[in-house]
Amino acid sequence: MTDITMIRSAAARLKGHARRTPLLSSPFLDEIAGRRVFVKPECLQHTGSFKYRGARSAVSALDPDARARGVIAFSSGNHAQGVALAAREHGVASVIIMPGDSPRMKIDNTRALGAEVVLYDRATEDRDAIGARLAGERGLTLIKPYDEPQVIAGQGTIGLEIAEDAVALGVAKADVLVCCGGGGLTSGIALALEADAPGLRARPCEPQGFDDVTRSLVSGKIERNARLSGSLCDAIVTPQPGEITFPIMQRLCGPGLVVSEDQCLHAMALAWSRLKVVAEPGGAVALAAALFHADQIEGDAVFATISGGNVDAEVFQTALARFA
Amino acid sequence: MTDITMIRSAAARLKGHARRTPLLSSPFLDEIAGRRVFVKPECLQHTGSFKYRGARSAVSALDPDARARGVIAFSSGNHAQGVALAAREHGVASVIIMPGDSPRMKIDNTRALGAEVVLYDRATEDRDAIGARLAGERGLTLIKPYDEPQVIAGQGTIGLEIAEDAVALGVAKADVLVCCGGGGLTSGIALALEADAPGLRARPCEPQGFDDVTRSLVSGKIERNARLSGSLCDAIVTPQPGEITFPIMQRLCGPGLVVSEDQCLHAMALAWSRLKVVAEPGGAVALAAALFHADQIEGDAVFATISGGNVDAEVFQTALARFA
Repeated sequence: MTDITMIRSAAARLKGHARRTPLLSSPFLDEIAGRRVFVKPECLQHTGSFKYRGARSAVSALDPDARARGVIAFSSGNHAQGVALAAREHGVASVIIMPGDSPRMKIDNTRALGAEVVLYDRATEDRDAIGARLAGERGLTLIKPYDEPQVIAGQGTIGLEIAEDAVALGVAKADVLVCCGGGGLTSGIALALEADAPGLRARPCEPQGFDDVTRSLVSGKIERNARLSGSLCDAIVTPQPGEITFPIMQRLCGPGLVVSEDQCLHAMALAWSRLKVVAEPGGAVALAAALFHADQIEGDAVFATISGGNVDAEVFQTALARFA
Repeated sequence: MTDITMIRSAAARLKGHARRTPLLSSPFLDEIAGRRVFVKPECLQHTGSFKYRGARSAVSALDPDARARGVIAFSSGNHAQGVALAAREHGVASVIIMPGDSPRMKIDNTRALGAEVVLYDRATEDRDAIGARLAGERGLTLIKPYDEPQVIAGQGTIGLEIAEDAVALGVAKADVLVCCGGGGLTSGIALALEADAPGLRARPCEPQGFDDVTRSLVSGKIERNARLSGSLCDAIVTPQPGEITFPIMQRLCGPGLVVSEDQCLHAMALAWSRLKVVAEPGGAVALAAALFHADQIEGDAVFATISGGNVDAEVFQTALARFA
């Protein structure tokens, strides 16, 4: 199970590979939030999202024989690109299983990063069966997107960096708002903060209608989302919290925060105008919570992750047209 | 006159205040350029442009009595915001003289950073006379945008960071492409590279029709632009190279590179999609040169600055609509 030792080992393996993202801030955002806002822009990470950290952590942790046979992942999005790049950097094959109706650009990007993309028909084919067959035939190792200890450890390296920067800023106590899907990023950051910055507390942030983690933390058991698609924040929507991630979040995280899609678009426009970075809708959830749910946050400072920046031009233009 | 000692002193004064911007890269940009491209995103700097560095360097270098009386600057753009923030951080007054027809947002942003904005009528009033009167009455010190040794020293800190990162990347020889207006950024970077990375060579990049520095380097004397407005890259358009900056560029810089406005818009769209950062048109000039004038560049790696990201939503949406 992931612990701080695994996170530090992941940080050592990622050093010189994952980008050490800075903390960004703007007096204009501080004014909206009524406190200092420090933004961790993982959109600037390789492949445009934090997922590269977990993917590279997992691929680099494999024993050399298993790694040489290659890896496989199910993803149409950020995890796919993270795994593809991590595999290529290790000189091993990656197979990414994607729905045939995935956006062309995501397929092309994943292929351009060296992955073999296998498309399947959502209506007639069984994704897991295809994956199992390919994995069995070739001896590929499955890299899960969040419920995997080495993936959680990789995402946790973000928490180490936030803890280090918080000391430099003189912030000893604050909420750390995290864009949350399956909980890999949230639980990894929570574990790192527990060790290195016990006054900082991770809190999951989710879009309305897909607040499975927030509800699970309230009820004390794993709750599912009523639906799985139709969110602008698709990149961070999962059916339910992970079996591994949920107990970590339950032990360490503060209450969840839930934001509307309009608030995400507004936060995207403000990240554009005030921080000069590109956030995808799901990646703007935590910033939206910091800015527009300030009454649910305590203290004179808050940290917010931007988990990714892989967004279609049309959606981005909508955010600018409405809120910039 | 600015030298490496002044630049190192400026770096010491800026430490903990100016943001240490990372180098960004993308395999997709490398492919377009045919070599590795490392981007220095000064759009992520405080106030959204490199100008904060020079402004803070200059304000912090003033003797305490002069500084206490306050500072004054002529600018409707990035230099104004840099001076305003630097003055506020020192607890001193700043007066910014701007044309009355400046975009509302620029006026508002500069005021929000604590400056007293004095508007003048371009048709009927003499900017310099207004400035001289205010400076005389209040004992304000003028902070020039580029032809000022401490401003050049502040911009030069970017060159120190590029030199340091180049060593870590193992790049000993490369061109460093710099968005160039009056030459403060270019000459500062050139001086820093001369000292810390003699195999790296600064090269000014300019928009077509406003290539005064490029032509001046060819002719060996200061050449003027035929016109001063009408460029999408207004933020970096100046009448001619500075009296102080030009001799430095003449001694140290490689030939200039000239790009079209369409190439700037295209580079903005690629910075958005591949690096997840926001570039203004003038701020994208060097990246455009790296990507679309690769035949004028030597070596297997190139550095490009993004000098700023303060751009109107409409212009940005045009870039996305046309090139994303």
